[in-house]
Amino acid sequence: MSRIGDESADIASAASSRRHEQRYVHKVGKPPKQRLVDEISHTFKETFFHDDPLRPFKNQPKSKKLLLGVQAVFPILEWGRRYKLHMLKGDILAGLTIASLCIPQDIGYAKLANLDPQYGLYSSFVPPLIYAMMGSSRDIAIGPVAVVSLLLGSMLRAEIDPKLHKADYERLAFTATFFAGVTQFVLGFFRLGFLIDFLSHAAIVGFMGGAAITISLQQLKGLLGIKSARFTKKTDIVSVMRSVWSNANHGWNWQTIVIGVSFLAFLLTCKFIGKKKRKLFWVPAIAPLISVILSTFFVYITHAEDDGVEIVRKIEKGINPSSVHRIFFTGTYLAKGFKIGAIAGLVALTEAVAIGRTFAAMKDYHLDGNKEMVALGTMNIVGSMTSCYVATGSFSRSAVNFMAGCKTALSNIVMSCVVLLTLFLITPLFKYTPNAILASIIISAVVGLLDYEAMILIWKIDKFDFVACMGAFFGVVFIGVEMGLLIAVAISLAKILLQVTRPRIALLGRVPRTSVYRNIQQYPEATKISGLVIVRVDSAIYFSNSNYVRERILRILEDEEEMEKQKIHHLIIDMSPVTDIDTSGIHSMEDLHKALKKRDIELVLANPGQAVLDKLHASDFAEAVGDERIFLTVADAISTLVPKMQP
Amino acid sequence: MSRIGDESADIASAASSRRHEQRYVHKVGKPPKQRLVDEISHTFKETFFHDDPLRPFKNQPKSKKLLLGVQAVFPILEWGRRYKLHMLKGDILAGLTIASLCIPQDIGYAKLANLDPQYGLYSSFVPPLIYAMMGSSRDIAIGPVAVVSLLLGSMLRAEIDPKLHKADYERLAFTATFFAGVTQFVLGFFRLGFLIDFLSHAAIVGFMGGAAITISLQQLKGLLGIKSARFTKKTDIVSVMRSVWSNANHGWNWQTIVIGVSFLAFLLTCKFIGKKKRKLFWVPAIAPLISVILSTFFVYITHAEDDGVEIVRKIEKGINPSSVHRIFFTGTYLAKGFKIGAIAGLVALTEAVAIGRTFAAMKDYHLDGNKEMVALGTMNIVGSMTSCYVATGSFSRSAVNFMAGCKTALSNIVMSCVVLLTLFLITPLFKYTPNAILASIIISAVVGLLDYEAMILIWKIDKFDFVACMGAFFGVVFIGVEMGLLIAVAISLAKILLQVTRPRIALLGRVPRTSVYRNIQQYPEATKISGLVIVRVDSAIYFSNSNYVRERILRILEDEEEMEKQKIHHLIIDMSPVTDIDTSGIHSMEDLHKALKKRDIELVLANPGQAVLDKLHASDFAEAVGDERIFLTVADAISTLVPKMQP
Repeated sequence: MSRIGDESADIASAASSRRHEQRYVHKVGKPPKQRLVDEISHTFKETFFHDDPLRPFKNQPKSKKLLLGVQAVFPILEWGRRYKLHMLKGDILAGLTIASLCIPQDIGYAKLANLDPQYGLYSSFVPPLIYAMMGSSRDIAIGPVAVVSLLLGSMLRAEIDPKLHKADYERLAFTATFFAGVTQFVLGFFRLGFLIDFLSHAAIVGFMGGAAITISLQQLKGLLGIKSARFTKKTDIVSVMRSVWSNANHGWNWQTIVIGVSFLAFLLTCKFIGKKKRKLFWVPAIAPLISVILSTFFVYITHAEDDGVEIVRKIEKGINPSSVHRIFFTGTYLAKGFKIGAIAGLVALTEAVAIGRTFAAMKDYHLDGNKEMVALGTMNIVGSMTSCYVATGSFSRSAVNFMAGCKTALSNIVMSCVVLLTLFLITPLFKYTPNAILASIIISAVVGLLDYEAMILIWKIDKFDFVACMGAFFGVVFIGVEMGLLIAVAISLAKILLQVTRPRIALLGRVPRTSVYRNIQQYPEATKISGLVIVRVDSAIYFSNSNYVRERILRILEDEEEMEKQKIHHLIIDMSPVTDIDTSGIHSMEDLHKALKKRDIELVLANPGQAVLDKLHASDFAEAVGDERIFLTVADAISTLVPKMQP
Repeated sequence: MSRIGDESADIASAASSRRHEQRYVHKVGKPPKQRLVDEISHTFKETFFHDDPLRPFKNQPKSKKLLLGVQAVFPILEWGRRYKLHMLKGDILAGLTIASLCIPQDIGYAKLANLDPQYGLYSSFVPPLIYAMMGSSRDIAIGPVAVVSLLLGSMLRAEIDPKLHKADYERLAFTATFFAGVTQFVLGFFRLGFLIDFLSHAAIVGFMGGAAITISLQQLKGLLGIKSARFTKKTDIVSVMRSVWSNANHGWNWQTIVIGVSFLAFLLTCKFIGKKKRKLFWVPAIAPLISVILSTFFVYITHAEDDGVEIVRKIEKGINPSSVHRIFFTGTYLAKGFKIGAIAGLVALTEAVAIGRTFAAMKDYHLDGNKEMVALGTMNIVGSMTSCYVATGSFSRSAVNFMAGCKTALSNIVMSCVVLLTLFLITPLFKYTPNAILASIIISAVVGLLDYEAMILIWKIDKFDFVACMGAFFGVVFIGVEMGLLIAVAISLAKILLQVTRPRIALLGRVPRTSVYRNIQQYPEATKISGLVIVRVDSAIYFSNSNYVRERILRILEDEEEMEKQKIHHLIIDMSPVTDIDTSGIHSMEDLHKALKKRDIELVLANPGQAVLDKLHASDFAEAVGDERIFLTVADAISTLVPKMQP
């Protein structure tokens, strides 16, 4: 639009709009005070039931309510009734694909947790069944995952040596799994799901990346055929690399390296193909199983194990034995199991919920985080009683599940049936599978967790997040998994506290040819009004920042008086972003008011929100300032204070 | 103003202002991206140097800079040079008054800390001198205070029994004092002063009130003349009252009770008089000294101590001996001393800074919190080497100091001189002072800390603050001082986290006869626009709330579609209050955008701030939404989306 032409019209209309402001200044809304009970119940509802889970139950007959209640606990009853035959193809195909992917992974992941291979398979049989009945995500693929296996393994080993006290180690593992489930269940049941949001996206990316490195390093043992006796128990990069080199001259086994590296190359190529052509997603999905079959067959006929090629050797046949009696419900290991379980459970939860949300957003269906947690919790509790260790949603397998066109949780049932058959029929064959293959399968599975693109994006978007991300990453790589986790959470919390301690205080100016007032940093063309200072406090005013806010505003005043070389007679505080104020905040506002009086500057407030206004009145501060000095907008304030001001 | 008359004119002008909006829609400011270094250095400056302490140094000659530097460390050089004779009267008078008040209090407070009486006096001699040189508050009165003495006493006793291992107990006390000073100094020096802001006003009120109760209960021992051997060591109300009653029949001493209660009555009356007539503030100020003199004289002539009236008995004469060699710089007590010192130091700091700020606001002079901490820290470090225990600013004495018309920190020097003379000349006389008097002096001193008015105000203003306040109060009264402190901090932090986890999402409507859009809860008269939903997110969007924000907005959409019984085609998010967004926030905005696309609802953003806009662009989300869908104000957005809309 041509500006020159409109000038006159602009001024005219601007003038008219100014007249308009002058004639009509709307009062600041001051609704009747809420009753305390309502106030509290409202806060409570927003905190724990913001998603209003009971909505469908409203004004329904009793019988219907009951049905809905049961369906709420077992969504399978709900989607099962609506199940169409045409969905079946997708679900079965997807189920078979993730099964072929999970079987070799499970065996490997079990080793990460220092458990016998069959426990990995067990954990892919029972938990998926439970989840399929209770979970509401349609795309998640349940089973053991690399990161949790590693975390669990390293924490358990810190308590019990898995070689020397195998039985106790396994018992502690089940105990931890039990409490992992309990933790998840309790969080979900008491609607405390939001607690896991305190592990920020950046932190997770960093943590996962670090875990990927650590896990891959662990695999060097299997890949180079180093005897575990000679290999370090530590997980940090320094000690791992040292023990790798120290074994270089006599500890490595070339046959193993040949097998491992060649299959690793094969797997990574398949992964690459899958990435390039999304239609060929099944290539990387079945590659692991193929390599297991090939390598096992190869070892079987060549008896490579006699040349020092480490093989699985022993794997139990048959389905999950009960393990109820093996859980520590008493003794010193109870507390340890609880601690380990709680941590592992939370990490597992974060991973599962993140996956669930991602796919729910893609297909736009609602996912109740808390209900998910209850499902995952139950699944792990039952799992701990049927010889499973902590299971959760796997990033890689869920993606495959999604791409294979799964429609419902049925794909998980299909998968666990396949695992069942495996346990019954073909597990014995796995005993010739070389560990090197499992190592290369794990590596090719976890490389995806090292999401450098996400890291770059985080760097571009938010430097502080990047710090959290790197903190987690290096914490895991150089110190250990738990430490990395701790660092990540600590930095994330520090960020929040910093933000509420140092809110932005913006100096406002009038955006030309409008009656809008904006931050002059962002709108350099915005003009200040002489004798007036307009600031905006960009946060709730709480004890953590109340003093800062007061001091900062006073400093802005001094700067302005210096720069403008003239007396300031009004200070307008735009309170639009001030969502809340507490007693400390009120006190520092009062102090500010006192200080301003001393310099005879008038304090004017613009657009205080409901909560703030209530408190200003409750504390009689509003009276002290004077209701006539509280306006709906900055523009109203200006038009009243400086009637003959030119726009 | 009459509304009917203006109607037509209003509509006309509103229409014109609408035309105006339509013709001229200002672009959203998008300044050139900040360089990373600037960004970081800016954040750093705002966090640690927001008060710009180096400003006076700007463009000054070297010599001047040096002088300013020295003055910054020793403000006395600055105000000393400007000192006028007419100030002297006020300072001397104030000094004498607080001296007369502090001498008896010191002796009592020393007993609270389980130390010999002279240590109280020592702590009113050296620290005030140091503070007078380095501190920048003009009204604060330095010395031992009740709460810190109690806290220190109870924490020290937990480690060492003051009766059995007197020497070690004293050594640990000096060690704690040393580290209290170090903590304060370090916080100030590294500009971490804001950390103490995390103890909210409400928490302090509760904590102080609880401490007042606990301290008064402790005094029942002295007031009733119960032998300390028979009295409980615990501080919680239950065990104290129990041991008071258990001693009722044979443990009490009527002579003591008579003396104690009568003087307590006298002191409280004086306090009452002082409250009623502000001109008579000196009455409660000198009352303690008078009662000490009277009672001491009375005991001296009647030899009441033979009738079981407990007296001070032993008090050292002469000034502070050095105690450098008595500080534990090695051994197990080092760590314990550090822990105790850090806690006591922080509490002392909170009290001193609160006092300093209060009076600074009253007289409107600037007070650099961090500089104060350095001063207090140095003062306690030096104190710990000259047989003093933790000293800080006293609420009651500072108020007296202020009312007595002190002009500068000189009044502290005067006070410490009087204390010096006392130590030299009259301390021996104190050995006949009955403990009952000290008890009643302490009680009358701490009742003021139980600030029920403030508690009522907190209840009126902010319920959550009240919870924190009561948590601290009952924590102290029923469990113990440290516990109360812990509870207070925990609740305060929980409040912050809750606020950032559950921000308000407001539904906006157009305020009649304006182009202003406000929360329809606060402005019920505001009108929604059919087919549009306008929401405002009242907080930064961070990992802690990003999922909540997304889910909440989607739910509002559903509610609206239900209520309005019609399709929503636009969602406008007013981002004015959104001060910042992190990667998690971006991701959930992207998820929201996906979900909206699925329901073909267009996403429109209004007034994103600078930081947010940068990140929206960095993440290409702004491109995904489309720059043409990002407006300066909601009004602009509406006038563009719905040109023919009626106001």
